[in-house]
Amino acid sequence: MKKIKYMIAAALVLFIIQVYAEEGMYPVSEISKLDLQNKGLKISSLDIYNPNGISIVNGICKVGGASGSFISEKGLIITNHHVAYGAIQGASTPEHDYISQGFYAPARDKEIPAKGYVVRITESYRDISKEVLSAVKPGMTFQEQAEAIDKRIKKLVKKAEKKHKGKRAEISEMFPGKTYVLFLYTYLRDIRLVYAPPRSIGNFGGEIDNWMWPRHTGDFSILRAYVSPDGKPAEYSGDNIPFKPKKVLKIDPAGVKENDFVFILGYPGRTYRNRTSYFLEYQYKYRMPWIADYYQWEIDLAEKMSAKDRGVAIKLATKIKWRSNTMKNYRGKLEGIKRLNLVDKKRNEEKALQEFIENHEKLKKYSGLLAEIKEIYTEISENSDRELILRYLRSSPFIVSMAFTVYEGSKELKKPDIERKSAYMNRNIKRTEKSIERGFNNFYEPADKAILKKLLLKAADLPENKKISAVEKIIKGKDKTSAVNDFVENLYAGTNLKSFNAVLKALYGNPLKDKIFNDPAILFVSQIYEEYENLEKIGKEREGKLDKLLASLLDVKKKFKKTAFIPDANGTLRFTYGRIEGYSPRDAVFYKPFTTVQGIKEKTTGKFPFDAPEKLIGMINSGRFKSFIQPDIKTVPVDMLYSTDTTGGNSGSPIFNAQGNLVGINFDRAYGATINDFAWSRDYSRSIGVDIRYVLWILKDFSKAESIIKELNL
Amino acid sequence: MKKIKYMIAAALVLFIIQVYAEEGMYPVSEISKLDLQNKGLKISSLDIYNPNGISIVNGICKVGGASGSFISEKGLIITNHHVAYGAIQGASTPEHDYISQGFYAPARDKEIPAKGYVVRITESYRDISKEVLSAVKPGMTFQEQAEAIDKRIKKLVKKAEKKHKGKRAEISEMFPGKTYVLFLYTYLRDIRLVYAPPRSIGNFGGEIDNWMWPRHTGDFSILRAYVSPDGKPAEYSGDNIPFKPKKVLKIDPAGVKENDFVFILGYPGRTYRNRTSYFLEYQYKYRMPWIADYYQWEIDLAEKMSAKDRGVAIKLATKIKWRSNTMKNYRGKLEGIKRLNLVDKKRNEEKALQEFIENHEKLKKYSGLLAEIKEIYTEISENSDRELILRYLRSSPFIVSMAFTVYEGSKELKKPDIERKSAYMNRNIKRTEKSIERGFNNFYEPADKAILKKLLLKAADLPENKKISAVEKIIKGKDKTSAVNDFVENLYAGTNLKSFNAVLKALYGNPLKDKIFNDPAILFVSQIYEEYENLEKIGKEREGKLDKLLASLLDVKKKFKKTAFIPDANGTLRFTYGRIEGYSPRDAVFYKPFTTVQGIKEKTTGKFPFDAPEKLIGMINSGRFKSFIQPDIKTVPVDMLYSTDTTGGNSGSPIFNAQGNLVGINFDRAYGATINDFAWSRDYSRSIGVDIRYVLWILKDFSKAESIIKELNL
Repeated sequence: MKKIKYMIAAALVLFIIQVYAEEGMYPVSEISKLDLQNKGLKISSLDIYNPNGISIVNGICKVGGASGSFISEKGLIITNHHVAYGAIQGASTPEHDYISQGFYAPARDKEIPAKGYVVRITESYRDISKEVLSAVKPGMTFQEQAEAIDKRIKKLVKKAEKKHKGKRAEISEMFPGKTYVLFLYTYLRDIRLVYAPPRSIGNFGGEIDNWMWPRHTGDFSILRAYVSPDGKPAEYSGDNIPFKPKKVLKIDPAGVKENDFVFILGYPGRTYRNRTSYFLEYQYKYRMPWIADYYQWEIDLAEKMSAKDRGVAIKLATKIKWRSNTMKNYRGKLEGIKRLNLVDKKRNEEKALQEFIENHEKLKKYSGLLAEIKEIYTEISENSDRELILRYLRSSPFIVSMAFTVYEGSKELKKPDIERKSAYMNRNIKRTEKSIERGFNNFYEPADKAILKKLLLKAADLPENKKISAVEKIIKGKDKTSAVNDFVENLYAGTNLKSFNAVLKALYGNPLKDKIFNDPAILFVSQIYEEYENLEKIGKEREGKLDKLLASLLDVKKKFKKTAFIPDANGTLRFTYGRIEGYSPRDAVFYKPFTTVQGIKEKTTGKFPFDAPEKLIGMINSGRFKSFIQPDIKTVPVDMLYSTDTTGGNSGSPIFNAQGNLVGINFDRAYGATINDFAWSRDYSRSIGVDIRYVLWILKDFSKAESIIKELNL
Repeated sequence: MKKIKYMIAAALVLFIIQVYAEEGMYPVSEISKLDLQNKGLKISSLDIYNPNGISIVNGICKVGGASGSFISEKGLIITNHHVAYGAIQGASTPEHDYISQGFYAPARDKEIPAKGYVVRITESYRDISKEVLSAVKPGMTFQEQAEAIDKRIKKLVKKAEKKHKGKRAEISEMFPGKTYVLFLYTYLRDIRLVYAPPRSIGNFGGEIDNWMWPRHTGDFSILRAYVSPDGKPAEYSGDNIPFKPKKVLKIDPAGVKENDFVFILGYPGRTYRNRTSYFLEYQYKYRMPWIADYYQWEIDLAEKMSAKDRGVAIKLATKIKWRSNTMKNYRGKLEGIKRLNLVDKKRNEEKALQEFIENHEKLKKYSGLLAEIKEIYTEISENSDRELILRYLRSSPFIVSMAFTVYEGSKELKKPDIERKSAYMNRNIKRTEKSIERGFNNFYEPADKAILKKLLLKAADLPENKKISAVEKIIKGKDKTSAVNDFVENLYAGTNLKSFNAVLKALYGNPLKDKIFNDPAILFVSQIYEEYENLEKIGKEREGKLDKLLASLLDVKKKFKKTAFIPDANGTLRFTYGRIEGYSPRDAVFYKPFTTVQGIKEKTTGKFPFDAPEKLIGMINSGRFKSFIQPDIKTVPVDMLYSTDTTGGNSGSPIFNAQGNLVGINFDRAYGATINDFAWSRDYSRSIGVDIRYVLWILKDFSKAESIIKELNL
């Protein structure tokens, strides 16, 4: 009897868990199928997404590669501090260090243009798979198929942009080789900085706390979008007026509590859930460990060089930040794959699928599918070291990457626009220029040289049958260390590509007339370029083949599992739901779902990144929390944990409660949730957001940002 | 209405907390006053301690400096792995590495003598304060008072041991300058090793997990005590028979669960709860930071030297282990004092006490008390660096410590026994010899030299008015680094004290005839010895003065607080109770009170100290846990947390449930509880024990130790 009781209790627990959170970054078209009211949603799914009217979705935007929300009639956008960071940095001068001090424009004429910022609003989308896939003709090689699809997509985009003046079109692959969707976006180009907390709040905890819980980061900032007086997207102008969003999201200053239903809308970047065990094994055994180790080396190098000189530290800060971010993310993923036994789990699923195929006469044509996919990843794995070295040789030493751009770009620019590589097409070339310009801000020659040397020596150590001939030529018979050393020193002493203008001149000039091959960096690139063309060819071949195979795999998996599949995240608008809940990161430890302002005081050391402002500590010490408190803990909550399904790109995503009101801003995942790119885990997949009560407390009580509070109309 | 409900709930929570756990390492005579039945105890307090009969207390013993329990009629003792470590190490040979492999004697003739181990049983005790304090005569200086008390204690001990043949007497100061208790102990000297798990279980997690939760250490071992055939304590002999304890503790294989009442009996070493804020401030600002930094330096040195050579690593392992243990403990204490604001808290209590004194005419004589105590600690703080350097100069470089022993001992041994320093009295001299012999096992000259150099250079850097003349003589005008270097090199090249026999010969020889002053180490000691005699004089003076002041302080505090005080721990038998409960070490993190075998697997890396045996991992993976499981988590618990009040010396203490049955063995405290020596904290004071279910699972299912399981009579 008692046993039965236990079983019922266990079943109930299971039931509760199932209704409250599940895997899924759903395209908004799927929301109505999810029976969300039974899972805790208190509004209609049409209130979230209404294809024939205005809904919450219309209050969401994309800010750079991340997400944001419209929170006022006059175009106020709330997103993360780290998303607005470029704007804060760009607005700062030696006299006005808004990174350290924070920024608040009490009136519109005090706002500062967020240079280079673009806000994107999803206007419409439609399935365009047939038009894309009809580019593939019988008899084409896999490489030709992949190229035909690429070209067709470019053409369809051009056509759509012509038809919808002022909009930007993008075609996203939803299921590889199978489903393609055409998205139309409005691009707002006059974006201004309205509010940023000091870095000691907005990035409290810095790299050390990145990917970590408990977290105490006030990772939010406020921007405003402007349009021309006639309401059209426009570049910055003093005459522009605030953009009026179709939908303004409502803030609930009461926030949420443990176990509450929440949902998130945003633009998650990339996931690989629908890939095979072979893909995962390649990531686990080859690609991610190699990159994590290599990034660790680059970080150590940059930190050593930064320690001596503040100027150097500023130049290398971005590299350290992003390399650390990825390195820690990969280490987390590697741990997660091991802990969850993911490769074996997927392998077992595939075994079952194979048996299913072999037990059904009609599915015979699929019987070689998994073996073919395995073969591709075996080949990728075997060439992994070589390809990774080539990839980083091209991208990591900045001068070499400039030589690549010049060498490749000057060839591409001669082609008709539609045939060019994407970076050199007319619609993208300005962005490419901007990225070159930004790159020079962070160029530090000694680090650059050390990186090139390291990569050339790695290339020299490749096994006989994997050698790279251009590198072998550098060494041929000499001591490899001194040969590489001499080569790199000569390259940097002789190259002319050390300024933005020099690169632009070479890019748009006449390669033969300008004798760009006299430049040792370009000469090196010209010798190694064939390897990259080969890589690309092989890549296209693999891509074409995998597209076919994965499309078939999806077909047979649907038959096997009798269920629809959710497309992997691909930077398009997605919906996910879950609840406010903690988790157990390891045996005997439980992470509660809310941190509190007391925790800020606990962590504060006075030294970056744990340098909370004295004023804030004073406010915490005073213990007088009038509003914005969590009733059961009687203090102001800071960050929160919830079991939604997010990934990179969801930065800045609004967190909604069951009523569809905004209760927080998503900005990170817990360490155990770095695994989200490969699998969602009931036990570990927790996202991290800043609680709206902390946002409001900082705005109102810390920064006295009255004009913003007023505009929010709470 | 709702508010009232909340208040009632809050009051109830407070109530529950208060009845379940509180500060206090009670002398067993106090147990009956604690109203334990109302706090959860299910037996009578006479079952725990019965001055006129047999009770649980009679099943407790002291093993070295730690605690143990009798668990069979035939003298089986359960204690910690780290307590029995010396015995396991001593039993090991290159052929039989019981440290790595573990040890199990399936029959009595397979047991191995635990050389040097002594087990102590408390037989009786009585207050002897009057006899001790009557040694103090009017007109004595403070130094004379302290010396008179010392001498009187020695005499009373001698008298008691004469009266109670075969027993050992000890007089313990319960309240400084106020209460003294004479304890009579039986010393069992034939102790044998019966069972030890492999180090990969018994010390799983090693130094990294030391003072940490979550913990997964199987820190237990089993010994057996023997006596002569006529039942009397005796040295090892093949004819000896197992000791029959007065009380055998009963094991409950069902263990405990969260919130259960537990109590502990054992021999906690030292606490300082009854000291003043001035004492604490001195520890916090001067003594502990100095020692933690200095130990860190010694650890770094020893680790660097160990990295190159396995032989060196073995010699230095003990130093690294104990220095790390103390260093981490001190760092934890420093953090805890800061976090709990302990100095300020005590200062405020003292302010209130001072006001109380000044408001009561009759208490006028106490009005200068706190100021006088403050003055003493001001002086101690001012001389702290100098005194610490002198102290470590004497004890840390082993050769110098040998020279001290020879120089001092050869003088002391000429005096009548009762007048000698304790280490050289007849009842202790054999122990002193043993400790010299053990010291040579760990002597590694290069480390020894580096330590002496470091300390001499520290001495050289003391401010002008604190200089040490013997060190100044070494340097006088020369470059201090090279002068110290030359001096140390010459000392080690010239000394004869590099073997146990040489030290013994010099100690018992004729100093003048043997010309021991020709030895450069002894010569150095002879030049610096006066400083130590001075230190000792000053120390006695302070001790005498503090004894008086603290005795008065206790008197007036009793009047102020209207409560009895519990004497600080001093290595005598104590009782403490609490409950099985986790805690929150920092914002948003909760530590649950049980770890599980799954956590062992989680931590296992295959490398020491996370090298759980493959067989154990296999048992965990199998998931077939038949017995010894925790019902609510359906797996075998490993370690547990509880809110009793313990400190060093409680290692090996039995943990009892409400029925007085043994449910675990205490072995450590959580990091936040390192503060216990200064204050007990409701929030942080948690002790760590190994769950009896893990002990039994390891014995039965891992080690197949059938004979032990049978003897336990579960």
